[in-house]
Amino acid sequence: MHLDTCHVKTVVDAKQDRLNAARKMYPSLVTSQNVTDALSDPEIDAVVIATPVLTHYELAHAALLNGKHVLLEKPMTSSTAEAEKLMNSAREKSKVLMVDHTFLYTGAVRKIKDAIAGGEIGRLQYFDSTRINLGLFQPDINVVWDLAPHDLSILFHLTDERPESISANGISHTNNGVENLAYLTLNFEKDIIAHFTCSWTSPVKVRQTLIGGSQKMIVYDDIEPTEKVKIYDTSYGVTKVMSEEERYSILMDFRVGDINAPKIDQTEALRGVAIDFISAIVDGQTPVSDYQSGYDVVKVLEAAQQSIKQRGKEVMLT
Amino acid sequence: MHLDTCHVKTVVDAKQDRLNAARKMYPSLVTSQNVTDALSDPEIDAVVIATPVLTHYELAHAALLNGKHVLLEKPMTSSTAEAEKLMNSAREKSKVLMVDHTFLYTGAVRKIKDAIAGGEIGRLQYFDSTRINLGLFQPDINVVWDLAPHDLSILFHLTDERPESISANGISHTNNGVENLAYLTLNFEKDIIAHFTCSWTSPVKVRQTLIGGSQKMIVYDDIEPTEKVKIYDTSYGVTKVMSEEERYSILMDFRVGDINAPKIDQTEALRGVAIDFISAIVDGQTPVSDYQSGYDVVKVLEAAQQSIKQRGKEVMLT
Amino acid sequence: MHLDTCHVKTVVDAKQDRLNAARKMYPSLVTSQNVTDALSDPEIDAVVIATPVLTHYELAHAALLNGKHVLLEKPMTSSTAEAEKLMNSAREKSKVLMVDHTFLYTGAVRKIKDAIAGGEIGRLQYFDSTRINLGLFQPDINVVWDLAPHDLSILFHLTDERPESISANGISHTNNGVENLAYLTLNFEKDIIAHFTCSWTSPVKVRQTLIGGSQKMIVYDDIEPTEKVKIYDTSYGVTKVMSEEERYSILMDFRVGDINAPKIDQTEALRGVAIDFISAIVDGQTPVSDYQSGYDVVKVLEAAQQSIKQRGKEVMLT
Amino acid sequence: MHLDTCHVKTVVDAKQDRLNAARKMYPSLVTSQNVTDALSDPEIDAVVIATPVLTHYELAHAALLNGKHVLLEKPMTSSTAEAEKLMNSAREKSKVLMVDHTFLYTGAVRKIKDAIAGGEIGRLQYFDSTRINLGLFQPDINVVWDLAPHDLSILFHLTDERPESISANGISHTNNGVENLAYLTLNFEKDIIAHFTCSWTSPVKVRQTLIGGSQKMIVYDDIEPTEKVKIYDTSYGVTKVMSEEERYSILMDFRVGDINAPKIDQTEALRGVAIDFISAIVDGQTPVSDYQSGYDVVKVLEAAQQSIKQRGKEVMLT
Repeated sequence: MHLDTCHVKTVVDAKQDRLNAARKMYPSLVTSQNVTDALSDPEIDAVVIATPVLTHYELAHAALLNGKHVLLEKPMTSSTAEAEKLMNSAREKSKVLMVDHTFLYTGAVRKIKDAIAGGEIGRLQYFDSTRINLGLFQPDINVVWDLAPHDLSILFHLTDERPESISANGISHTNNGVENLAYLTLNFEKDIIAHFTCSWTSPVKVRQTLIGGSQKMIVYDDIEPTEKVKIYDTSYGVTKVMSEEERYSILMDFRVGDINAPKIDQTEALRGVAIDFISAIVDGQTPVSDYQSGYDVVKVLEAAQQSIKQRGKEVMLT
Repeated sequence: MHLDTCHVKTVVDAKQDRLNAARKMYPSLVTSQNVTDALSDPEIDAVVIATPVLTHYELAHAALLNGKHVLLEKPMTSSTAEAEKLMNSAREKSKVLMVDHTFLYTGAVRKIKDAIAGGEIGRLQYFDSTRINLGLFQPDINVVWDLAPHDLSILFHLTDERPESISANGISHTNNGVENLAYLTLNFEKDIIAHFTCSWTSPVKVRQTLIGGSQKMIVYDDIEPTEKVKIYDTSYGVTKVMSEEERYSILMDFRVGDINAPKIDQTEALRGVAIDFISAIVDGQTPVSDYQSGYDVVKVLEAAQQSIKQRGKEVMLT
Repeated sequence: MHLDTCHVKTVVDAKQDRLNAARKMYPSLVTSQNVTDALSDPEIDAVVIATPVLTHYELAHAALLNGKHVLLEKPMTSSTAEAEKLMNSAREKSKVLMVDHTFLYTGAVRKIKDAIAGGEIGRLQYFDSTRINLGLFQPDINVVWDLAPHDLSILFHLTDERPESISANGISHTNNGVENLAYLTLNFEKDIIAHFTCSWTSPVKVRQTLIGGSQKMIVYDDIEPTEKVKIYDTSYGVTKVMSEEERYSILMDFRVGDINAPKIDQTEALRGVAIDFISAIVDGQTPVSDYQSGYDVVKVLEAAQQSIKQRGKEVMLT
Repeated sequence: MHLDTCHVKTVVDAKQDRLNAARKMYPSLVTSQNVTDALSDPEIDAVVIATPVLTHYELAHAALLNGKHVLLEKPMTSSTAEAEKLMNSAREKSKVLMVDHTFLYTGAVRKIKDAIAGGEIGRLQYFDSTRINLGLFQPDINVVWDLAPHDLSILFHLTDERPESISANGISHTNNGVENLAYLTLNFEKDIIAHFTCSWTSPVKVRQTLIGGSQKMIVYDDIEPTEKVKIYDTSYGVTKVMSEEERYSILMDFRVGDINAPKIDQTEALRGVAIDFISAIVDGQTPVSDYQSGYDVVKVLEAAQQSIKQRGKEVMLT
């Protein structure tokens, strides 16, 4: 990533061989195994933290206290308590605190956002996401913390509605108690439902979201190379009140029409993240993936954990 | 369907125009709008009941009391109480009571059953079914009662394990309170999880089940014309116990190998249902889709309803 | 097929068991093993001939001479000479002579026809059809005569242009010299090219046609259940004349935009064929799939045969 | 690409900005706009030439005369005459002359090669390749020279048979006379046929090859992420000689069985090319993609051009 408005000075990593590899590629880089070197460097204005989530709070907090702007890998923190403290520190220090919800910067999600914001889809009725694959077991977090942030951040980007409660179920097939397969359902005050399937143990890779609106429906398939977003001119509704004689004749009115796969901007999402971060620092504008977005996601993850342990019991989010 | 061992004598339907259409096609048929005509006919040995589920109990009970063998459309009844009464009547009258879980007779499900029974797949770890489509709102039952019986009957056919409890969520987007979108999770004593996505309001038609075993995994895609069943030579497991120093290094052992799509017998499933029903009558053998199978399914449907009303609260099944 | 405006009186077949099966289904049918019975029956106004192509001419000619309207299975005849004689007889006897190019009556082809006729696609540039499958070896005709009529009739329905010449290649992998795999290329006066891949020996079933226009392109996939026709807002053209210095810089202007899958009418095509045949008889209107269409197809098939025997040598069609 | 056994010293390009970009990424690179700098450098043992095909002969010839080993981008040269001269120079100078037919080094092609070489597929009967896409018009060569080398090199890698003749057709939709769409058919002495569809003007990207053998068939789909190679346990053959009475009863024996998608090695193909080139230099072994392979491909391309100009007329290759 080369942006004229910023310059990467230092890379910090616990492992020397990774630092060597970085310096081989970019010889002008300063490398260090000690994060304090970077945090105390007055030439450094901003840091990007891409470490295990358990270390996010401590590192980001130290960075903010040292007057650095912070871009955090998702999920933002390992608890809402940590997230709240970081948000307070960012406000006190007037520093940018942003979370890397990369998908919000993809052409596909921006196209879906436009379709919903422009009213074409109608009222949101359901959001059903499947993100499954084989592999990539994370050592310190379960599959929900690993995969659901992507889809939760997309949902919260597409609608201003926030869930009332969550019911979640999951299972660990390994002997370490970390869930590798989980299902989340979010309930809303309005007649919206959101569901998330997360798996590290599927033989096939699926990244598909179905989005139902009162006017149209969307299928977002992130694996599909050219038709990632399809908008279905499809809707349904009850058109006839049942009379006593017609108790078996609810007439649903299904409208099935054309399917449109709009052209998607192919610009690299990570570039959008970097530009948004720098714009937030330079111009003071709120980034698309701001800390509130990071907090909202962590809140659901935390509650999902509680619900899974109680086999689907509803956990309130309000 | 023409089977030499049986003969269809009478068709009963409330609507005269449907009877006319049947008689036009098969002029030798006796038709009637009164079910008693058929139930009191001493020439009739067996009846097939394909009516709304709310009427199943009354009709099947009358048929059994009149000494008829009964093949019931799925789901068997609208409650476990009704199912139990029918089962008792069938036993008392020594009549066959069978439920039409058609999918158990497809080449695809039989192939999967063989792979699991033969040990090729290993221990069952998960079963994740998606059956979604646009349309076909049922007037008297919700989407769970309409669609889940297919997948529940398949699961119970593939394993002898029965679930401990269920957590389910759903939503009605129409003004009649009947769920059109629902999610069911079944928990088992062993480390098995089963999940079912049912929808009448998807813009795309999906009929896919992922089945995870300790040795191999299966993708069963009923829409796929030629490769309905794919067996993935894929498995995972923890191969290394973590030491203190290696807290971030759980090493999962993923085996990813060939994919095999076995040849599937294309014989029509409904023919298998009919043959099994007649064999049960003539030879006294237990049909594949027997009443126990019907009861097990209704039990889950009933509990699903309770869980949905409590937003995912676990409902015990044992 | 039940149409109020006509009635099927007699079925003729060489095999008695097929006649028995037909009468079992439709007891009021007259059946016969002798075609003269039908052709001499004054109550019969029209006949449908679905026999091996080698017998088409003789049967259709007898029918026309007996004053019957004729609907012929495709391909119309086994030679253009035969086709011309039938066309003359039909004109002399003032009888309808129609060929069953069923695909012209499908919702998909009608939608494509509308898009081209309405100017949305621009000038036709290419037509590339693949119709391959496993099986269905015909005893008396090769794969070109069996499969290409479908796609040739579609092409000739979509454009008024007719080809100047053909180059074709094929192979027989069996010991009977009948080609089971063949490729046809049609050349036109204008800058149009049409290509046809026909195979009885493909492990996968493909029925796909790519249609390129100067403004948009179409992919017609007849296997696809819901998105048979996709219209790509895609075109290309040279936008810059090369200067000497820029010999490596032809700048093509590619426009890639939205993809639209229009809703397709699902009405059964065979019903459209029957209605068109009867309308032609009753109202005297020219059917969509008229004898000229049948002749144009046979002309290409005949020339394809000649070209294949000369390994692709161009055979003129004008 | 980092290989311990070699070191990239110099990059030559006509454009200074590309050299600057290369040096920014790899600061230790020597860069030059003058190819003589590299060819006369005694420290340089081998050169990789990735320039427009019209310049291949001149550059490679100069390199060989200067005692450099040469790896040429495909197609090897713009004529067989040029190819022969290069081959002679390489032999005289005892230098490696290799062509970069990258696909021969992919896991997919190696798996197919193994299946054919091991006898699993039986005798090769057909090879049908479709490589179509939108875009990438080449200024100096047509679509055949651009795309067909991939598939021709694969075919010649899979079988030792070489074609007797070619029949080809094509069209240019631009005003520069360069074909953007073309079809090639290769005839063989044995009952093999090979066909190639090449297009720069397809709205969809397809890279699919069907390979028919007397025992099994293969579908190689290079777009498919996980199932690039599928082996169909499918074959056909005539099992009954026709008697006079049975003229309509050729009985084909179709065997349709399992489909197997073997695990494919994911190693980057370009790495295999580099290793093979260096091994040829160091150990003297013949590379997989040797100059004979390059020559065989150019011979077909040259003949294809002649056949296209004569609208499919057979051009001999022996």
